[in-house]
Formats: sequence, C-alpha cells, structure tokens
Amino acid sequence: MITTIGFDADDTLWQNEAFFRLTQDRLADLLAPFAPAETLHAQLLAAERRNLGHYGYGVKGFTLSMIETAIEVSKGTVPAPVIAEIMAAGRDMLAHPIDLLPHAFEAVSSLAQTYQVILITKGDLLDQERKLAQSGLGDLFHGVEIVSEKTAQTYQRIAKTHGAQIGGMVMVGNSMKSDVLPMIAAGGWGVHVPHAMTWELELAAPPQDTQETARFATIQTLADLPYLVDRIAAGHNL
Amino acid sequence: MITTIGFDADDTLWQNEAFFRLTQDRLADLLAPFAPAETLHAQLLAAERRNLGHYGYGVKGFTLSMIETAIEVSKGTVPAPVIAEIMAAGRDMLAHPIDLLPHAFEAVSSLAQTYQVILITKGDLLDQERKLAQSGLGDLFHGVEIVSEKTAQTYQRIAKTHGAQIGGMVMVGNSMKSDVLPMIAAGGWGVHVPHAMTWELELAAPPQDTQETARFATIQTLADLPYLVDRIAAGHNL
Repeated sequence: MITTIGFDADDTLWQNEAFFRLTQDRLADLLAPFAPAETLHAQLLAAERRNLGHYGYGVKGFTLSMIETAIEVSKGTVPAPVIAEIMAAGRDMLAHPIDLLPHAFEAVSSLAQTYQVILITKGDLLDQERKLAQSGLGDLFHGVEIVSEKTAQTYQRIAKTHGAQIGGMVMVGNSMKSDVLPMIAAGGWGVHVPHAMTWELELAAPPQDTQETARFATIQTLADLPYLVDRIAAGHNL
Repeated sequence: MITTIGFDADDTLWQNEAFFRLTQDRLADLLAPFAPAETLHAQLLAAERRNLGHYGYGVKGFTLSMIETAIEVSKGTVPAPVIAEIMAAGRDMLAHPIDLLPHAFEAVSSLAQTYQVILITKGDLLDQERKLAQSGLGDLFHGVEIVSEKTAQTYQRIAKTHGAQIGGMVMVGNSMKSDVLPMIAAGGWGVHVPHAMTWELELAAPPQDTQETARFATIQTLADLPYLVDRIAAGHNL
C-alpha cells in the first residue's frame, strides 16, 4: 500500500533556519543605529510575507527583503556600504556548509531500500541543488522535486509524475503548514518531525479532523521514521 | 523516431530580453550621475557573470547584480532611495505582461497533437511558472521542466523522466549555447530560432562538426517548425 516517501529538506534533513537566524543577527548588528532588534525582526518578517508572492522562497528573495527592510527602518538613509554588507551576508548563506540532522542519512538510506524516496523542497533551484549535492544524500533519492509552493495540488502532481498513488505516499517534514497539512489534504500521509527553529511563516496548527489525524503522526527524531512507515505500510492507522 | 519536442520559453515563446534591456536603461538613468551607460553595462554584465554560480538565472539574481553594480560604480555613495528604485524596477520585471512571439501558440498546439511537448526553461521557479500561466500555453505542454542550467546531462535526465530516447528528441530555442549545443552534444536534435535580442552570456558559435550539423537547423520563425519537425521525423538529415 505505501510505495513512496517524500522528504522535506531544510530543517528536516539538514540545518537551515539556523543560518537565517544568524544572518538576521548580523543584520540587527548592521542596522543597530536605526532600529532595535525586535522592530527590525518584525519589519523583516512583514517584508518577507509581502514579497513571497513576488520572490517565492529562498535566499535571493530573503536578501532582497533584508535590503528593503534596511532602507525602510533607516527611512532611506542607510549607507550603501551597509547594503553591500547585507548582500555579502546573503551570499555567505549560499555558501554555508551542510550540517546534516541526526539520523537523516540512516533514515533515508534505510527507507530507500524498500520504498521510492523523493526529496520535495521549496527554495531557489540552484541553492537547493547545491545543498543536496553537498549533503551526500543525492544518490539515495529516486527523485528530486524543487517546487515554488507545497500545496495539495503539488503533492498530487508529484505522485503522478513518479507513478505513485497519493494514498500510498508519506510526506515527512518539519513544517506543519507545507509538509503535513497539504499532503493530508491531498489524501496522503503526513509525518511531522518538529525542529526547534522553524520560520514563523511555516507554523500551523496540527490536523484536528479524525479522518485526517488517522493519517498524521509526530516523531521527535528521524530515527523513529522507518518503524513508523512500516506500521503505516502494515495497515495501522495512526 | 521523433517523439518529443522541447521548447525553450524566454525569447523563444515570449519576449524576455526586451524587459531586461528596458530595465537596464532605467538603471542607466538612475546611475547617470555616477557612470556613463556603456561603463555601467559592462560592469553589470561582469557582475552577472560573476554571480551566476551563486544566484543562478532569473530576475532576483539580476536585481541583486544591479544593486551590486550601483554600489560599485558609485564607489559606495549611491543613496538608499536609488537602491529602492532599482528594487522596484526588479519587481516590475516580475509583473510584466506576457508578450507571445509570433506563431508560438500555433507551433506548440500543432506539434502537441503528434508529439510530446515539454517546456524546458531556466530562471526563477515562481517567475517562470507565472509567465507560463499567463502565456495561455500552459495546458498545451505535457511537461514543464524549470532547471538551474541546461547541460547535456540536463537534457538526458529530462528525456529519461519523460520516457523519451534522446535521439528522438528535438530542442527548440533562441540560445545557441543553452538550447542547441548541449542538446546536440547529448545526442538529440537542436533547432535554433534566433531572436533579435539575446543576452551576451547566451551567445555561442553554431555546431561545426558534420555529425553535429546533421542534427542542427536554423529557422527564422516558429511558423516553420512543424514542417521541419515532420522532415526530421521522416528521417531526413538536416
């Protein structure tokens, strides 16, 4: 019955939000003459939210939102060298080393022996490809899907592309909003692996409806995933 | 023998470079106090080339390269409101209307009746998806591949994904460098449809080797494409 496991990448297989937080701290230092850190954080988040429909996800759009916020909080007085620093901070993010999360390699390689495993991630194409290549997990995956948004339709299309039934597909990730809820809405299974740091725009309440909770589970670490998937495959509801 | 036609998008199916040129003119006006237009153009092109490995293709990276160039040519003195204008110019590019090239709709819809037609484009995911949706061509394509780079390996992977033999695949586009040469190197067929405006970084010499020229053709307009593809399918070399 279960044939296919989808894995989110950022903050599911490797650290990501931590680098965004470090960069935001760097931004706060750079802009300390203009705004306190909390104000800055709120304005940056508002800019990211506002720009998501233009820029989509990823470091390039984040860099542009940081620059926009710098101009905004400084009321147009931020000096160009500070903007150059912000751009350098963005470029550093595009070069940060990959820090795999515990049990990521074991979980993917173990499941890949029995199931079709597919990486499903949002973000900038080139940057997500770079991270996958550097992660050492690239060869384990049967497919890679870098998408602009994770909706129920996205998961249905991916299932179709890879010859899977959506009801036989499990999506694993740290974002309730992007990895779990739309996959369950599409008719598949959602496994939430919470990460201590998750971007505000990815937060959402867990499924409530009993039909949906039957296809939803939370695990604290990827070490528990192979056992959980085997239970689902054996026909247990969750 | 021929089963699959790949179409490039920007400047093959719809105008694209024209919007980049207009934006560069806008940039030249904004930065006229700091540098003449030719200097600016050369510096911007150098920045784009330098940043391609970090940012990949698309408007977001172009916007970041414009900002970098503004800081550079002004020796760090460009005022923040000018940078805000550059960002606005970048956002305008992400909202420009789609201007289909002549015969694009007819060529794709006619070939889609006999062949598998796949859109193969570089650039930012969200922006390329937006343009395809607005083009009205979205429903004609059997597949859409937005890729970070167009290499021989890219075309081989796409052929495999879509169940095609590379020798049975024709790629159609305005970029000799990205659409024609790597597809021929991969073992497929390349059809060049020159566009009056092509980005400097996409220019390349046509194939020279007779083995390669046998799988290469140039047409002046997409109106000639269905006849050409039928000739190839009928076993004619080019």
